[in-house]
Amino acid sequence: MSKEQRAKVDAMLRQPRPEGPRSVEEIRAGFKALMAQMTVPDGIRTTQTTLGDRPALYVEPDNGPRAGTILYFHGGGWVFGSPETALSLTGHLVAKTGLGAYSLDYRLAPEHPFPAAIEDTLSAYRALLDSGKDPSTIAFAGDSAGGGLTVTTCLAARDAGLPLPAAIVAFSPGLDATRTGESMDTKTGIDPIFTREAVEHTGAMYLAGADPHQPLLSPAVLADLTSFPPMLIQVGTNEILLDDSTRLATRARAAGVDVVLDITADVPHVFQAFAGVLDEADEALDRAALFLGQRIRVASAAHTSAE
Amino acid sequence: MSKEQRAKVDAMLRQPRPEGPRSVEEIRAGFKALMAQMTVPDGIRTTQTTLGDRPALYVEPDNGPRAGTILYFHGGGWVFGSPETALSLTGHLVAKTGLGAYSLDYRLAPEHPFPAAIEDTLSAYRALLDSGKDPSTIAFAGDSAGGGLTVTTCLAARDAGLPLPAAIVAFSPGLDATRTGESMDTKTGIDPIFTREAVEHTGAMYLAGADPHQPLLSPAVLADLTSFPPMLIQVGTNEILLDDSTRLATRARAAGVDVVLDITADVPHVFQAFAGVLDEADEALDRAALFLGQRIRVASAAHTSAE
Repeated sequence: MSKEQRAKVDAMLRQPRPEGPRSVEEIRAGFKALMAQMTVPDGIRTTQTTLGDRPALYVEPDNGPRAGTILYFHGGGWVFGSPETALSLTGHLVAKTGLGAYSLDYRLAPEHPFPAAIEDTLSAYRALLDSGKDPSTIAFAGDSAGGGLTVTTCLAARDAGLPLPAAIVAFSPGLDATRTGESMDTKTGIDPIFTREAVEHTGAMYLAGADPHQPLLSPAVLADLTSFPPMLIQVGTNEILLDDSTRLATRARAAGVDVVLDITADVPHVFQAFAGVLDEADEALDRAALFLGQRIRVASAAHTSAE
Repeated sequence: MSKEQRAKVDAMLRQPRPEGPRSVEEIRAGFKALMAQMTVPDGIRTTQTTLGDRPALYVEPDNGPRAGTILYFHGGGWVFGSPETALSLTGHLVAKTGLGAYSLDYRLAPEHPFPAAIEDTLSAYRALLDSGKDPSTIAFAGDSAGGGLTVTTCLAARDAGLPLPAAIVAFSPGLDATRTGESMDTKTGIDPIFTREAVEHTGAMYLAGADPHQPLLSPAVLADLTSFPPMLIQVGTNEILLDDSTRLATRARAAGVDVVLDITADVPHVFQAFAGVLDEADEALDRAALFLGQRIRVASAAHTSAE
């Protein structure tokens, strides 16, 4: 049955699309329509708020959150997407962990290219810390470009001398603006969502001429992950971005970081968005929820015992 | 606190040992004494039984197991160890999953070198199938040499035309008799348990002159893992055997196998044996239990719906 589910998802993603490059507005509208099909779990409620200088969607269990906070970064190539398009993912993490999540509406390219997104995510993290939240109770999570932001925001926080969060969870993160992963070529035609041209099209909007050879743009290739918190990286094998994840995991291991590289075969980019449709999606989210619960629990306990 | 726990475990393992090579009897007695210190969880009961032609220890929850079976292979370099020395590991898996586990007393080298152990583990698996158990309800699990046996038994089962189990869980598996992993050198002196000389000493007893360049002896280097079930590999970074795991995970990924490579920093070989002492051990076992529950549940459901 699961194989049938995978084929169904794959076919859905391969539906005909307009030929040629689309405008930013068309890309944004198309992604919004695609993600509106995803299941949002019962038992959560959302509130529009702000974090730092940006809007954010606060997502929490109906009956109130337990201690601990997820700072969530949505996907969309740094060009499209919003907290609403990621609500299925954020909502399932909240429902499964009992934690509250701030999903940040960071600024997008091409109107606001690199490093605007990271300025916003770092500002949001700083706002959480300024509000009195202990970093050991905060986890970064995100998908695709937002998965990339979990890592680059952590780099930026370290560079700024801030304490680091308790954990990072990244779904199919985008971690390499140099586009040098082998999977960029070996998974072409297998990936039902992305082509090299497509990611380079939006990628160029985010770069806006910046040199991709820097850790904040290509952490899978260039970042020193020393002192990073435990990381869970989930990725499918039907992705040209697969090696962004495998190379980051290797760098994390070399830097002495706890790292779980969780690979599901024959599923596409951010397959967790198909929760409720694809068994692999629900199972992956359950593993992510356990990981988050372990990290936030342990860090909190360690903090308490040190007081 | 967790860092203190890690240091405590590390110091315990570094206690002075007799100089020079020890006899097989000394090695077996020393390992038995070491493992007798490990915590066995409450809520389980054990029964001596046989599986295939070999003795086995059946471990189950006090209140009876749920559907599904773990076939467990203990560690000990194919030369030492027994179901009793692995009872902490097996018992925690049983307690955390609710599954029953057969822990096999396979034949050991030097009295019975390669491939005796694999003959016994394959025979045990065949006995489970012959007893009417659905392969989709069986998982292989093991530590160290027994982690290696989870993989090589699966290879042998595939070669024999048997259906494969639903999952593999391997703790710090030994997967390379060619000893070519980079960690064999880079982790020397960091690994508090093993030296190259030590693993080659017992490894030679298992090989008994066999060519290590074959999949059943060096699966991390030579095995084709096509059609393998989902695998969870857990390993510490303070291990000369680290790259046995990383290379097997890479091979699994290339073969289209679901694979979770779960790396914990600064912990030694089979750190899960320190459950109850080391937070990382309990947490890793909880992740293993979730993985087993997901795989056995899903496979069973898929089987049922196909009937």
